[in-house]
Amino acid sequence: MKRLVLASSNPGKLREIQAILGPLDYEVLTQAALGIADAEEPHVTFIENALAKARHAAGLAGLPALADDSGVCVPALGGEPGVHSARYAGNAAGREARDAGNNDKLVAALAACGERRAYYYCAMVLVRHAADPQPLIGEGYWWGEISAQARGDYGFGYDPHFFLPALGRTAAELDPEHKNRISHRGQALRQLVEKLRGFP
Amino acid sequence: MKRLVLASSNPGKLREIQAILGPLDYEVLTQAALGIADAEEPHVTFIENALAKARHAAGLAGLPALADDSGVCVPALGGEPGVHSARYAGNAAGREARDAGNNDKLVAALAACGERRAYYYCAMVLVRHAADPQPLIGEGYWWGEISAQARGDYGFGYDPHFFLPALGRTAAELDPEHKNRISHRGQALRQLVEKLRGFP
Repeated sequence: MKRLVLASSNPGKLREIQAILGPLDYEVLTQAALGIADAEEPHVTFIENALAKARHAAGLAGLPALADDSGVCVPALGGEPGVHSARYAGNAAGREARDAGNNDKLVAALAACGERRAYYYCAMVLVRHAADPQPLIGEGYWWGEISAQARGDYGFGYDPHFFLPALGRTAAELDPEHKNRISHRGQALRQLVEKLRGFP
Repeated sequence: MKRLVLASSNPGKLREIQAILGPLDYEVLTQAALGIADAEEPHVTFIENALAKARHAAGLAGLPALADDSGVCVPALGGEPGVHSARYAGNAAGREARDAGNNDKLVAALAACGERRAYYYCAMVLVRHAADPQPLIGEGYWWGEISAQARGDYGFGYDPHFFLPALGRTAAELDPEHKNRISHRGQALRQLVEKLRGFP
């Protein structure tokens, strides 16, 4: 069993990542379980924020670290919420209150807009140690559209408003296993795992 | 015809990239042709150096910019030369002198080593503007081994010592079209172009 630390305190992300890495003989510890606080995410790109989070966790835990940075990007809004997805409507206390505020703000921003295409994006990074010169990178793009009505009880974040036309359902109407097979985070993690397998 | 600036002054890279992007209706200008000097490459990772180079060129050219950062990584040497590939043996004047010194140093470092596996790695980044929050990323890994004898006249850098067991040839023995089909840079660029096509 190989141990790695997940640089996130988001329980939804932990569930999704454990489901994919568990069968590969990885024990995923959260940084919160090791007493490590969230890192700063000061960058304008997901990939740089993911690197910053992974290095922070690897340095403090003394273990390989996995971090993702992800969000929803709406081309009609110039790519927003983008890296601001988690705090798009501000810094309300509690994840559920933030999710509700974020979704309200996004739906309002698109109320008068005919173009509702959006994609969830995930950059995932694995560093073997804090100064790793060759992080493994996985990326995922998951295209859908932002619906005015919320539907579904699974997932988190923007999932209830992230409508997948090909499935006729929102991301929050997909059971976790189904979401992992197709989501941005599932794509990124599988891409990263493939690269991991390519190493001696 | 779409214009973009290539954040490199390496004529070998320009030839390889033009061969792939030309048929896609891109006119690739070098930053040198626009009077833009090489950017600093201060980071420990290829991906961050590629981002730094692309932003630098995009900001000064006022055009979308493509940058790659690439090198050869030898696991038996802890990943070296890695991001130091271009200046591994120091800062000799002239590309050919640097290539020769780098190759000599690498061959010497592996002289007593039974493990010669190595990979060329390329991180390629396209930014639409200097503050682009969502750069497109392509990566390529090209596995081979470092041979003590130099062979071949094509390519540049470590190519004459980068032996491909499946082909029985070094990278410098592949004609440019063949190299582009399979090299780290060709892989990264095609991956990036695929992502570009996915955008509305």
